[in-house]
Amino acid sequence: MSRRSTRSRPTRAVDYIGLRHPFAPQPVFSEESVARLHEAALGLLERQGMRILLPEARAVLAAAGARTEDEMVFIGRDIVAEALRTAPRAWRLRAANPARERMYAPGEALFGPGSGCPNVTDRLRGRRAGSLETFNETLTLHQAFDVIHILGPSAEPQDVPPALRHLAMMEGQLTRADKPVFVYARGREQVEQSLEAIRVGLALDEADWSDGVWAYTVINSNSPRQLDRPMAQGIIDFARAGQMAVITPFCLAGAMAPVTVAGALVLQHAEALAGIALSQMARPGAPVSFGGFSSNVDMKSGAPAFGTPEHVKMQLGSGQLARHIGLPWRSASGSAANVADMQAAQETTMALWGAMLAQATLTVHAAGWLEGGLAFGYEKFIADVEVLQMLAEMCRPVGADEDDLGLDALAEVAPGGHFFATAHTMARYGTEFYPPLLADLSNHGTWVAAGAQDAAERATAIWQKALAETPRPAHAGEASERLAPWLEARRAAGGAAPLD
Amino acid sequence: MSRRSTRSRPTRAVDYIGLRHPFAPQPVFSEESVARLHEAALGLLERQGMRILLPEARAVLAAAGARTEDEMVFIGRDIVAEALRTAPRAWRLRAANPARERMYAPGEALFGPGSGCPNVTDRLRGRRAGSLETFNETLTLHQAFDVIHILGPSAEPQDVPPALRHLAMMEGQLTRADKPVFVYARGREQVEQSLEAIRVGLALDEADWSDGVWAYTVINSNSPRQLDRPMAQGIIDFARAGQMAVITPFCLAGAMAPVTVAGALVLQHAEALAGIALSQMARPGAPVSFGGFSSNVDMKSGAPAFGTPEHVKMQLGSGQLARHIGLPWRSASGSAANVADMQAAQETTMALWGAMLAQATLTVHAAGWLEGGLAFGYEKFIADVEVLQMLAEMCRPVGADEDDLGLDALAEVAPGGHFFATAHTMARYGTEFYPPLLADLSNHGTWVAAGAQDAAERATAIWQKALAETPRPAHAGEASERLAPWLEARRAAGGAAPLD
Repeated sequence: MSRRSTRSRPTRAVDYIGLRHPFAPQPVFSEESVARLHEAALGLLERQGMRILLPEARAVLAAAGARTEDEMVFIGRDIVAEALRTAPRAWRLRAANPARERMYAPGEALFGPGSGCPNVTDRLRGRRAGSLETFNETLTLHQAFDVIHILGPSAEPQDVPPALRHLAMMEGQLTRADKPVFVYARGREQVEQSLEAIRVGLALDEADWSDGVWAYTVINSNSPRQLDRPMAQGIIDFARAGQMAVITPFCLAGAMAPVTVAGALVLQHAEALAGIALSQMARPGAPVSFGGFSSNVDMKSGAPAFGTPEHVKMQLGSGQLARHIGLPWRSASGSAANVADMQAAQETTMALWGAMLAQATLTVHAAGWLEGGLAFGYEKFIADVEVLQMLAEMCRPVGADEDDLGLDALAEVAPGGHFFATAHTMARYGTEFYPPLLADLSNHGTWVAAGAQDAAERATAIWQKALAETPRPAHAGEASERLAPWLEARRAAGGAAPLD
Repeated sequence: MSRRSTRSRPTRAVDYIGLRHPFAPQPVFSEESVARLHEAALGLLERQGMRILLPEARAVLAAAGARTEDEMVFIGRDIVAEALRTAPRAWRLRAANPARERMYAPGEALFGPGSGCPNVTDRLRGRRAGSLETFNETLTLHQAFDVIHILGPSAEPQDVPPALRHLAMMEGQLTRADKPVFVYARGREQVEQSLEAIRVGLALDEADWSDGVWAYTVINSNSPRQLDRPMAQGIIDFARAGQMAVITPFCLAGAMAPVTVAGALVLQHAEALAGIALSQMARPGAPVSFGGFSSNVDMKSGAPAFGTPEHVKMQLGSGQLARHIGLPWRSASGSAANVADMQAAQETTMALWGAMLAQATLTVHAAGWLEGGLAFGYEKFIADVEVLQMLAEMCRPVGADEDDLGLDALAEVAPGGHFFATAHTMARYGTEFYPPLLADLSNHGTWVAAGAQDAAERATAIWQKALAETPRPAHAGEASERLAPWLEARRAAGGAAPLD
């Protein structure tokens, strides 16, 4: 058998879906300091309070015993304690494809795509505003790689009117991919219609719908200490619908948060606890994820920075706070780079390692983020997927049994010889190593002869292939048929205006 | 005081020199498996043995009780045990500048530059063979950044005749930098002259010379299980001179080592133990570093791969083996990329995190390696230094005292406000965050207006500035004067031919 023969080459079976964290979580604070941060956050909620712009949300918290004063709500530690008592520790994220379903729980590792970007950019078409076409393209990119575990709004479809946009986003997610679905919290009517789209598109009966979680949203507070109307309503609506709200204060140290790692985390923690409290007071036991996305600003320009040492330190500290309260939690990677270059790769890779060592349950913006989220980069997405796949490989155990040690091969090969032809190598060479997605390992001469393409240039070909060759998921046809009349009716009725 | 005023802006005091590992070392094997790998390596040395091409080295081991048969040496576990008993656990790496001196010991984190490259490449001058000019330039780059802790032969000065090359390399290191010095083990005469150059250049008396370690070399075995003449002689010579030999099997799984992580590590461990045994039998107590540089080959092309999941797993496993025998050890980063692109950044960053989580004492090839070491990249060096500086920042503790928590600032800023003007921010904003070296955090419009330079383009300006502005070290003038007549005499006598 020729070594180069691929006829009988075994397929490399990898599971990039069911990842569990392989590393021990790493601290930046002593246990005593973690308790002090938690205590400071409780004190902040009690004494300084949160400004919550939605009267309904203030009423929910007031009913639970919180003191209110105009738009301010002072949340006592008893309310927080009760919320942390009823908040679940684990739930199942459902998906159109059962093979894509995941537990959302401490110890699990899920990666979400770069999200919330108004613009997209790629080497062929340049930088441009997100459109429905690019929104749908990015869904196909999410679908193409198993290591992207959930969907996210990588590109805002700005060519769809705001009142109809949520319908287009649901149609895309339910017919172009089969992974857990994202819904923006942009007002009750949009949320209700979006959740209904899932039930219609996937033909879920009541039992199925209430078994686990079919949609997630991200709740950003307006740091410091403010919750706007759509976000407050989103917490309530997702809680009542039994869907997952990911409470994510976005605390930029030195701008909307204190200039220190510890200070920014106190604020992040207080705002996250406030969101969790509102969720649990709206419906005890609702699936709500602790979360944080804190980083620093560049003190020269005031611009947000990502993948910095401070970002990683805040990730590690956030993980400690999550474990302190016992909840699954979300972190985020990211990059401030303006182009898919070494800076972009380094920043995202740094923050992905931070998320791994912080044991984030969900890492959002794990692939494709550029410009601090103002653009989704196609080539950047491919490059980040390479890192995610390498991290996924780290989740696989390393064998150390008799055959793994290769003692026969070691005895067989003479000093200065090589292992290419040993039975041990022959049996394993096709499947033993991670096959790179983007990396080109050819030598310099070969690389030059083949056109001297850098990683960004090669990434272009990879996303083009992914767009061209990723099949629609198995359920897509039926979902489209079921959704068509429902969507037509909703569109005819004008959709639903977003809440300001 | 204007926020933008820099007049009274305090300087950010950082120590990128004295780094200690901040993370708990992460395992890939159970303790039982580590013991099994160690045992397998002992068995390999006893039963299959090492082919050692230098008669003197065979005689040293035979005198210690090893069985020899032609060029083969079978090293019993008693000899290894004795070597591990006498090998020191810590020593001081001396340097022309006392502020650059470091302990070489478990828990310390030292970074060395990309080394051993026949070629160099940069965006202005292209890819070319290493020369004395580029060798000296790379020394200035090493000198420019505190986070590069030791010198290394980043570029081979191929325009200097082999018999004189070591003299040029010592002259450069002793007059252009003030960090611990590298000496190639290319034959006894070259080594003796190189070590003499240090004593002459730095005017060391016998007491100073024998207090700690003034030079290090890297010993690569010819995997599998072979030690060539210069390497074997180097182990003996560095041991007898009390200088540091870093035993570094270069085991590429699937080529010169078994195709598995565990199998490659058994071979690496056996070869490292053989080198340590030779060192300790030559001179008990000699400073010898355990080490490994194992990765996998690309099974499509047979080319070496770096920064892969297998590379990182082998780093973590090597760290476990180092702790099993209790010695400080060296790991390596690296990249197979042909150009300073996203692949290059990702591979090196992955392997740097691997080295951190493996608690490598010394990480070689930490900056500048391209093409699997066939080229030293100037722009790549700058990009890697950014990651090293960020990892160095991770070594600094995160404060969590009263003022770090920023409770006054948190109470002071109203909901939805900002922290720019708080006393807490004002007191800290100039020094709180890591100031990037290469990363450009400006927004897209500003970045485009400034010329839309990517990270590689910006890196060019940074290494140009480093070359132009890095001063000669304080001792350089005197060292040059002392070395001049000595070098002239050595050169007049023809230098010293390398050992084949």
